[in-house]
Amino acid sequence: MRMAELYALNEKVVLGSLHFSAEDIVRYARQFDPQPFHVDAEAARHSLFGGLCASGWHTCAGWMKTFVAFWSAEYARLKREGLTPPELGPSSGFRDLRWFKPVFAGDTITYSVTLLDVREHRSRTDRILCTILCEGSNQHGEPVIRFESTVLEFV
Amino acid sequence: MRMAELYALNEKVVLGSLHFSAEDIVRYARQFDPQPFHVDAEAARHSLFGGLCASGWHTCAGWMKTFVAFWSAEYARLKREGLTPPELGPSSGFRDLRWFKPVFAGDTITYSVTLLDVREHRSRTDRILCTILCEGSNQHGEPVIRFESTVLEFV
Repeated sequence: MRMAELYALNEKVVLGSLHFSAEDIVRYARQFDPQPFHVDAEAARHSLFGGLCASGWHTCAGWMKTFVAFWSAEYARLKREGLTPPELGPSSGFRDLRWFKPVFAGDTITYSVTLLDVREHRSRTDRILCTILCEGSNQHGEPVIRFESTVLEFV
Repeated sequence: MRMAELYALNEKVVLGSLHFSAEDIVRYARQFDPQPFHVDAEAARHSLFGGLCASGWHTCAGWMKTFVAFWSAEYARLKREGLTPPELGPSSGFRDLRWFKPVFAGDTITYSVTLLDVREHRSRTDRILCTILCEGSNQHGEPVIRFESTVLEFV
């Protein structure tokens, strides 16, 4: 079956939630983005953000983490039901990523995906291009991240 | 001093290099992107990619890591020289991220930044918007990643 049979266009699918503890935030940032407001709670309080918050790249990685967990479960579910799950390939990139608000220590982000468009590949008849909208909101329902991606579907 | 005084428009500035070992790749992917070609060398050999390769988000995070290290050193250098370094604020997002090639285990990625444009903020006279091009190439000189970002400069 194809992605477009599984998910209606423009319908938001919740992937799951991820809690960002202070420890998670600091551990990620120490390795990849050691700016004071990501690694030092006291310095963060006096920063533009007003509190310890996650590297934007950590917020992105959280989307990927919840997506992979969701898709593995979906794939297994479809197989169990005797269906043929869509075969997804890699993404070649993203468009228009926005970080709307910081993800603060203690926040829980709920991630989602929305299928926006499916179209034929220009040169390969065995591939479909799926455009997806990837989003995350905090526990107050405030959007914190969004980006659009194009993923390959093998048919 | 301002970014535009420090860096010429359209001139690529090398930030530094990052080696991606198999261990680094697997450690990152286990936490955020546990797809077989990112966590299992044997499965990766039989995948579309043909070998163990980094999560695209890991490649992004590598840009941030080398940028933060570079900018900290630049900031300290300018201070030592008695100059006032530009004060950079956060980025609100990026545009048109492309992963051109996989980053395989053993690759070393050299990251760079190019100042593309500086313009006044629409409503805040104390802020300038700097558009930057962020890139990475492997040890063969092949581009692996690029994206454009807008960062705030406080004046």
